[in-house]
Amino acid sequence: MGDLEPVDGAFETRLRAVLPDPVFRPLTPAYQEEPRGLFHGTGGLVLAPSSVDEVATIIRECAAARVPVVPFGGGTGLVGGQVMPDAAPVILSLERMTKIRAIHPSENVLIAEAGAVLADIQAAADEVDRLFPLSLASEGSCRIGGCLSTNAGGVNVLRYGSARDLCLGVEAVLPDGSIHHGLKRLRKDNTGFDIRALLCGAEGTLGVITAASLRLFPQPARQGTALLTVRDPSAALDMLAMAQARLGQGISAFELIKGTGLDFLRIAGLGGAQPFATRPDWSVLIDLGLGAGQDPEAELATLFADAERVGLTDDGVIAQSADQRAALWKLREDIPLANRAIGAISSHDISLPLSVIADFLHEADAALAQLAPFRVNAFGHLGDGNLHYNVFPPEGQTVVAYADKRQQVRSIVYDLVQSHAGSFSAEHGIGRLKPEELTRYGDPARLAAMRAIKDALDPSGIMNPGVIFSSA
Amino acid sequence: MGDLEPVDGAFETRLRAVLPDPVFRPLTPAYQEEPRGLFHGTGGLVLAPSSVDEVATIIRECAAARVPVVPFGGGTGLVGGQVMPDAAPVILSLERMTKIRAIHPSENVLIAEAGAVLADIQAAADEVDRLFPLSLASEGSCRIGGCLSTNAGGVNVLRYGSARDLCLGVEAVLPDGSIHHGLKRLRKDNTGFDIRALLCGAEGTLGVITAASLRLFPQPARQGTALLTVRDPSAALDMLAMAQARLGQGISAFELIKGTGLDFLRIAGLGGAQPFATRPDWSVLIDLGLGAGQDPEAELATLFADAERVGLTDDGVIAQSADQRAALWKLREDIPLANRAIGAISSHDISLPLSVIADFLHEADAALAQLAPFRVNAFGHLGDGNLHYNVFPPEGQTVVAYADKRQQVRSIVYDLVQSHAGSFSAEHGIGRLKPEELTRYGDPARLAAMRAIKDALDPSGIMNPGVIFSSA
Repeated sequence: MGDLEPVDGAFETRLRAVLPDPVFRPLTPAYQEEPRGLFHGTGGLVLAPSSVDEVATIIRECAAARVPVVPFGGGTGLVGGQVMPDAAPVILSLERMTKIRAIHPSENVLIAEAGAVLADIQAAADEVDRLFPLSLASEGSCRIGGCLSTNAGGVNVLRYGSARDLCLGVEAVLPDGSIHHGLKRLRKDNTGFDIRALLCGAEGTLGVITAASLRLFPQPARQGTALLTVRDPSAALDMLAMAQARLGQGISAFELIKGTGLDFLRIAGLGGAQPFATRPDWSVLIDLGLGAGQDPEAELATLFADAERVGLTDDGVIAQSADQRAALWKLREDIPLANRAIGAISSHDISLPLSVIADFLHEADAALAQLAPFRVNAFGHLGDGNLHYNVFPPEGQTVVAYADKRQQVRSIVYDLVQSHAGSFSAEHGIGRLKPEELTRYGDPARLAAMRAIKDALDPSGIMNPGVIFSSA
Repeated sequence: MGDLEPVDGAFETRLRAVLPDPVFRPLTPAYQEEPRGLFHGTGGLVLAPSSVDEVATIIRECAAARVPVVPFGGGTGLVGGQVMPDAAPVILSLERMTKIRAIHPSENVLIAEAGAVLADIQAAADEVDRLFPLSLASEGSCRIGGCLSTNAGGVNVLRYGSARDLCLGVEAVLPDGSIHHGLKRLRKDNTGFDIRALLCGAEGTLGVITAASLRLFPQPARQGTALLTVRDPSAALDMLAMAQARLGQGISAFELIKGTGLDFLRIAGLGGAQPFATRPDWSVLIDLGLGAGQDPEAELATLFADAERVGLTDDGVIAQSADQRAALWKLREDIPLANRAIGAISSHDISLPLSVIADFLHEADAALAQLAPFRVNAFGHLGDGNLHYNVFPPEGQTVVAYADKRQQVRSIVYDLVQSHAGSFSAEHGIGRLKPEELTRYGDPARLAAMRAIKDALDPSGIMNPGVIFSSA
């Protein structure tokens, strides 16, 4: 696979003969950068097809010429899957395939092209009184094709699953340029291997998703949000169990917030007013979506009272209006921005079995403290066992001063995650950032099967080389 | 792949040298038959390993000798995946790997070996006050490995998903004898291709699942069941939408029952007492699982009143006790037995986009009526768009008299399903019964990708030959 060919003038000329002018776009910096600044593109040809047939034409030409292809959605991925350094690939942007092709409210199905922005899909569902529950920080700019290719997570996975779970079928161009027409509107279809599930999470290494059939849900009739302090992460999990016993699947989100995160928000001037007089060490943001006959504020009050009685919490705010709900959510949603303002040495998107999370946090904090008095902001989707465990320089010191510790910090965190049977990438994927970790921590038999599938479906290795598999 | 070798004495001798005696089992008829009597085994060596290492030893030996392997669970599959005619394969039974290895109630996770009977897993979950929601007619004898390999469905898919959705990770032996250790207890793990999802639904053609990490759920605090008449299937779907708008995910099952099914129950003396004075043409069985603060009987009464007001229903029974719930469910659960007593010419496990179901039923009934005055029993998981559309001889006539019409009936039904973008196998899988339909109705690009994956992971073609792919 070492013999891929860079895009050159002759290749572009060949493409111009078979594709209309609007497909060809200028190579602006947006295609060469990614949010964390870890990877930088150095060249390439940007193509923005307007149809699956044009995508197929591009892939066929690339396969014939062994030109690498980097599928490009909203460019918001956090592991560098959208940027190929030191190469001149075809950057295949889905930005012109943004149509919502159909909505079937009575079937709870929406069919969108891969370039549709997530927020636009949410809005289209909302217009027909349905919910598309995928919700993440970048929803205003990320595109559904990227969400599916990376199996994106976000705040509602606890209740509704991740992107793969929300996808009923895909239309995709496979690495040989063939088109898989799989936009089924079916809940059940047991007719052979689940190629849909394979493409979701393959990060563009097995083909390009061009459209998807998505699951919608009834809008919860009544919603409610509370921010409750918790004694510690273990108490938070006890509170979750308590809430689930009472409300079952009515809990849409259950997010852990650390005091450090509230401090960072204050330092960065983000998140709005903080509701607690005394800044709690830990708190949880709970979001309920209930039926018409239920009262979310009353349920949250009951939960608080029950949890307080057994010492899990001692303070809390229950939103009494949509504005108050939004204010509580803003606290949570601004934490990544505050983190960026402070500047992390290393960020870790990890998941753990729920029952070991408290131990992990103790052990990881202690192990890192041996190195330096780092600040740690651990927060996120506690209900899924998914935490963003981010490590910051001690107060008053800079990231640069700790750059040489970065690899050591990563190893400490990931080794500990591995020893607790967790995952070193819960929702962000592998991209170009973590192939080494995948080799180190991944199950060998699974890795061999992955490699065999990659070689079978993409024998020239043109699809997003360097992503997932390090030996591009 | 035509050069697979039958099991012979020399091969058995080689195996006996590396495996303990209890692994070797007599070839009883149970391993040679399947519920519908369409396929019959003609020989083979039954092996019942007690550990994943023994499974790996068997697969390695089979791979080296090119001996076909038929993984065998509870033997309840309905498409012949468990029986290989005209061959002497290794029949690899999981019957000695029945342990529930661990239960983690606080994580809502249970880890079971592949041979564990579904009902035993349900009971183990129940003991710790949790729900394992996979529920199907054969739950008393089917084994979880088979459920996962066939991505089994059943009555609770509407709310909880099918077997694949309930599986967090697997331990499996791949066709080269390598062991994939993937028993993760994680809700989120975005580290490369979803091999778990690929093995679930591969029907033993890509390896043998030996254990699985399964999702548990809180037990619904309150349950309720009703049987309501509906004007027609379209009214049933309107009623479902009405119920979902009010109760969201609180609806655990929504099953369609046709008057013909009630007639068959009466003829066969099954199902217990029927609750309606006048036998309705259509009815639905609704099952609710709600939170502690909710009242399922009241919710069902409200639903009935609302639905009656707009003409969707005119009669109904709401269970007032666990016994009454069980009695209503018995009606539904005995329908397949009644069908078997009557004797179907052809049974079709189909799914359709919800909004075309009513049209499909009209058109299919009309098309079949051109052939003969068949009786049709269409019933099943309406909430998932999954119907069992089963065709019976006219009253007083025998199946045998219509045997020559079987293929024609199948084609009429499946062609119509295809024209409505449905599936010719919603939950039973492909097995040895439907490879021809898969070739005929499947998406060519997807089929090519499936073939490439099969060849990459199982180059000798030893794993369950003849299943899914007709050219074994």
